[in-house]
Amino acid sequence: MCQLLGMNCNTPTDINFSFSGFSQRAGNTDHHSDGWGIAFFEEGGLRLLVDHQPAVQSPVAELVRRYPIHSRNVIAHIRKATQGQVMLQNCHPFVRELWGKNWVFAHNGDLKDFRPRLHSHFHPVGDTDSEHVFCWLMQELWKSHAGTPSIAELTHTLRELAAQIAPHGTFNFLLSNGDALWAHANTFLCYTERAHPFSQAQLSDEDLSIDFATCTTPQDRVAVVVTAPLTTNEQWTAFQPGELMVFADGRRLAL
Amino acid sequence: MCQLLGMNCNTPTDINFSFSGFSQRAGNTDHHSDGWGIAFFEEGGLRLLVDHQPAVQSPVAELVRRYPIHSRNVIAHIRKATQGQVMLQNCHPFVRELWGKNWVFAHNGDLKDFRPRLHSHFHPVGDTDSEHVFCWLMQELWKSHAGTPSIAELTHTLRELAAQIAPHGTFNFLLSNGDALWAHANTFLCYTERAHPFSQAQLSDEDLSIDFATCTTPQDRVAVVVTAPLTTNEQWTAFQPGELMVFADGRRLAL
Repeated sequence: MCQLLGMNCNTPTDINFSFSGFSQRAGNTDHHSDGWGIAFFEEGGLRLLVDHQPAVQSPVAELVRRYPIHSRNVIAHIRKATQGQVMLQNCHPFVRELWGKNWVFAHNGDLKDFRPRLHSHFHPVGDTDSEHVFCWLMQELWKSHAGTPSIAELTHTLRELAAQIAPHGTFNFLLSNGDALWAHANTFLCYTERAHPFSQAQLSDEDLSIDFATCTTPQDRVAVVVTAPLTTNEQWTAFQPGELMVFADGRRLAL
Repeated sequence: MCQLLGMNCNTPTDINFSFSGFSQRAGNTDHHSDGWGIAFFEEGGLRLLVDHQPAVQSPVAELVRRYPIHSRNVIAHIRKATQGQVMLQNCHPFVRELWGKNWVFAHNGDLKDFRPRLHSHFHPVGDTDSEHVFCWLMQELWKSHAGTPSIAELTHTLRELAAQIAPHGTFNFLLSNGDALWAHANTFLCYTERAHPFSQAQLSDEDLSIDFATCTTPQDRVAVVVTAPLTTNEQWTAFQPGELMVFADGRRLAL
C-alpha cells in the first residue's frame, strides 16, 4: 500500500520532522519502495521532487531531510507499485495547471475498473490509474466552473466527484492548489491539528522527538494528514469511509 | 541577461560537466543571480529542479552537481529578472502537459509588448512575459494539431509561431517534449555536437577539463545548445538571427 502525507499551515513551515518519520516507511519500517515524491507550494510556485529510488536511499530525499523548505501546503507520497511500472512518470504527486494555478494530486489505492473517458485537454504522461483519475478530476473541475471557484465551491464539486469514483476501489487522495488541502479517504487517512499551546511529539517510525513549542509562535497552526499516525503522543482523528475534508490556514474547515 | 543551456543525446547522459561551468555564470563569472532551474527528461518522466536562490549558493544546484542524473533531454536556465518578481513561480523552465507529454520551455529575452490573448486552457502561474508566451505557444500548437504531430510537423509549426513572436523583442528559447529539443535565437545561441572520436574539453568558466573519450562509447552522440560557448576548445556554431533548429538523438536534424 502506498503512503500519503499532507501538511497545510497558516505560515510557511518546514516538514522535516514529519517527513523524517514518513520516509522511514519507504523500506525501513514498511515496504513502500517503488519511488516517492514530494511537492511544496511556495507562494503559488511549486517545488516538485520525485524519485523512482526508494526514499530511504534517494539522494533527493536526503536533500529534503537536510534542507528545510518552508511551505504552507505540502503533499508527499511513497509508492508501492500496484499498477504501472516503476518509472519516474508514474511517481506521485502529479501536477497540472488549471486556472493559472498548480494542482497537485497523490493517491493511495487501486481503481482497477475506473478508466473514464478523457475528452478534454488533461492526459496522463504515465500509465497509472492514479494519474488517469487525476486528469479526470481536473477535466470535471474545469467543466464545472468557468473561473477559479472559492474553496467552498471546489469542496462541493470534489465531494460529488469523489463519490462517483470511490465505489470503484480504494480511493484515498490528497489534492492541493496552494490555497487549501483536500483529503478524501474510503479506507485509511487520519489527521491532527497542531496549535498553541504546542507540546512535544514523538515519531512512531524512528527514535526522534521534537518540542514544537521551541520552534513556533502562538499564532502558528499546522494540520497534518497521513495514512497512519506519525506520532505516538498526539491526537489523530481517523477519516470516516467516504469522508472528504478540506484544510486551510492550518485548520479543518467546516465545509 | 538570462542564460540558457540545453542538451540532447541519443543515450542517457549526465550534464555535470556542462552544468558545472554553466552554473558559475550565476554570480561568479557573470551576473544572473535571480534564480535558476533545470529540467531532466527521464523516459517520458520529468525531474524539474528550480530555485530562487542563485545557482552558485543553492543546495539544490549542489545536488545537481553531485548527483549524476542521466537524461536524453535537459533544459537549464539561469535568471536575471527583467520582468516579474524574484519568486519560485517565475523561475524557468516552465512545464505544461500536452497530448500526454511534458513540455518544457525556457526563454532568454524580453517581449515587452507581446501579450497575446490566452483563450484556451494554458494560463501562467507567475507574471513573466516568458511563461505567457509559453502558454500561447502551447495553445497554438494544440490548435494546430489534432494529436501528437511528428517532429517535422512540430518544427514547421514552431517556426511559423516563432516568426510571429520574434519581432516583439529578444526571443531566444529552448523547448523539449522529451523526443526532441527545439532552439530558436534572434540574438545569441550557439551549439556544438559531440561524437566519436571524442576528445578533451576545457570549460570557459572554471578551471575544469574532461576527456569525453574516457566516459563514452563510439555510438554516443550529444548536442549542446547554450547562450555563449561553454568550452574553449570545441567548435561552437552561432545561430543566425531568427533561426530555429531541432535536435534529436544527439544531432541537428536537417528540418
